[in-house]
Amino acid sequence: MVSNASLIYAKPPHGAPVPGETIKRVVDDNFDPETVALNGGILVQAKALSMDPYMRGRMRDPKVKSYNQPFPLDKPLLTLAVGVVVRSEYDGIKPGQIFKGMFDMSEYAVVPAQLVKMGRTIENKEELPWSTLLGACGMPGATAWCGLYDIGKPKKGETIFVSAASGAVGQIVGQLAKREGLFTIGSAGSDDKVAFLKEIGYDVAFNYKTTSTEEVLEQHQLDIYWDNVGGATLDAALKNFRHHGRIIACGAISEYNVPEAERRGIKNCKSDMNVVTHSLRYQGFIVSNHNQDQFNAEMPQLVKSGEVKIKEHVTKGIDNGESFLDMLEGRNFGKAVIVFE
Amino acid sequence: MVSNASLIYAKPPHGAPVPGETIKRVVDDNFDPETVALNGGILVQAKALSMDPYMRGRMRDPKVKSYNQPFPLDKPLLTLAVGVVVRSEYDGIKPGQIFKGMFDMSEYAVVPAQLVKMGRTIENKEELPWSTLLGACGMPGATAWCGLYDIGKPKKGETIFVSAASGAVGQIVGQLAKREGLFTIGSAGSDDKVAFLKEIGYDVAFNYKTTSTEEVLEQHQLDIYWDNVGGATLDAALKNFRHHGRIIACGAISEYNVPEAERRGIKNCKSDMNVVTHSLRYQGFIVSNHNQDQFNAEMPQLVKSGEVKIKEHVTKGIDNGESFLDMLEGRNFGKAVIVFE
Repeated sequence: MVSNASLIYAKPPHGAPVPGETIKRVVDDNFDPETVALNGGILVQAKALSMDPYMRGRMRDPKVKSYNQPFPLDKPLLTLAVGVVVRSEYDGIKPGQIFKGMFDMSEYAVVPAQLVKMGRTIENKEELPWSTLLGACGMPGATAWCGLYDIGKPKKGETIFVSAASGAVGQIVGQLAKREGLFTIGSAGSDDKVAFLKEIGYDVAFNYKTTSTEEVLEQHQLDIYWDNVGGATLDAALKNFRHHGRIIACGAISEYNVPEAERRGIKNCKSDMNVVTHSLRYQGFIVSNHNQDQFNAEMPQLVKSGEVKIKEHVTKGIDNGESFLDMLEGRNFGKAVIVFE
Repeated sequence: MVSNASLIYAKPPHGAPVPGETIKRVVDDNFDPETVALNGGILVQAKALSMDPYMRGRMRDPKVKSYNQPFPLDKPLLTLAVGVVVRSEYDGIKPGQIFKGMFDMSEYAVVPAQLVKMGRTIENKEELPWSTLLGACGMPGATAWCGLYDIGKPKKGETIFVSAASGAVGQIVGQLAKREGLFTIGSAGSDDKVAFLKEIGYDVAFNYKTTSTEEVLEQHQLDIYWDNVGGATLDAALKNFRHHGRIIACGAISEYNVPEAERRGIKNCKSDMNVVTHSLRYQGFIVSNHNQDQFNAEMPQLVKSGEVKIKEHVTKGIDNGESFLDMLEGRNFGKAVIVFE
């Protein structure tokens, strides 16, 4: 018998999730790794659990449709994670292997066969930290790669603006864009984060809490805007585009925690006819629909060699959801991950 | 000497243009077609003058940037038009030819050389009415053609929704889409217009003033939305898309007359993450940047043969701007044109 802590989804939040209430730590003191039923799946001991903004979207009333399923109540949150296989009833997977895929936010998790099938075992030849396998070399890194190349189609000499630029995705976008010869502008929410943006090569970096995004962008003409935040920032970007600009719609974190009726909306999108008059393309994508072979082949080495620098926000062990809320509200600095020793 | 009536741009409107005040009819009683200076341009006698929603955008404070120039004050509105050449100082253009291009909203207009260069003489082999040369076979028709094929990329079996579907552009979009094997849904603002939509082959047609757009669209899954109106209609469409849907951003007539601070904005675009979660592409275009050769080659015959049906809203002669305001506020029924006997 071991104790097994999980982060449980207790009820849909109205605005922001409330640690200890809508999400909370629950410990099973009678978890038996030797005998727990696997039903054709595998048992993993978690090494790292990813915390990502999109997860807020699954904390919803099941009646609201979306691209993903709502989280079931009173179960652990499900997330992208890496762990070491303890037992397996799944063909081709053996104890000791590293499994990367979706599983419960728990110290020990039973991964049902259909989720095992969607994940994979990895070798981690570059010996990157567990957290990095979920960050720069995981879903956020792949999002940056596929979004920039497949949707943004960057050309040397163009200008890109990235919001939430020090975040898990933004920090990779800026560095990839720089490698392609773009002029890069990034915004973030603290002076520390701005210093980091300069360190990783952003040409212009500013703290949107102390500097007006509108005033900074007025001095530039954008070809690409990587939109992580939506709302007023997107509106400001829309006013400063060159013709044939592209907006990569990656997220709208400024509005995730805002109930529908109170949302600000986008006012410059059609109102000022900017999308029409500048022939803009505003396009969303889901990274899992994109081919990630090139990313998987190149990114680990770029990180290992230091050509792409990364910043991670690592929490040790499962808490009551405070670190998840920090991530949603921007108090993390870099990719937010829970790790276990 | 003849009298020469013009529609003059007198001052920028705050909301809607005011006939007789911000735009008004002015008559020059001493216009001499024989002696008026051409300075290398041509003199035309107008046969038809186009009235289009985008012209509202040129009635603005010159300090506000856009893709086109603001109209100069105290001059006639400039528009796409056809006329017969009376005199010419421009190489290759002779009296009696039909000229199609931008010129003043006047009975007689001097077209300066740089505008002559951007226009062209036409033969009108199909002997279409003057008005049609500005409608289905003019800019609105080309907008429908290039927007649908180049931006919408329609595939047989898909579903398209067109707002302002009985308008100059919408009526062509629906018929072209139907020819490509799409299921077509159109909205318009009166029962007469809805009857016309059914007559020209729309599979579903409804009056958005008496039927809820949201309720109609909930019964369908869209692949393409041709957006002529923006605002709440765009929001309703955004909730009912299949994955990889396309929104052709053609206009936002619901917000042209609304001052910036009072605009509604788009709330479902990023807020509900629809653009992201459904991998939507929302794209604007300017028809003059698109190749129109195929349109020019095929459209006149489609109209002549009746394969594409058209509806025009014809006003005889220049008024005080009432017909222009009618067009902006949807009281026209089909392409709005001023014609002269």
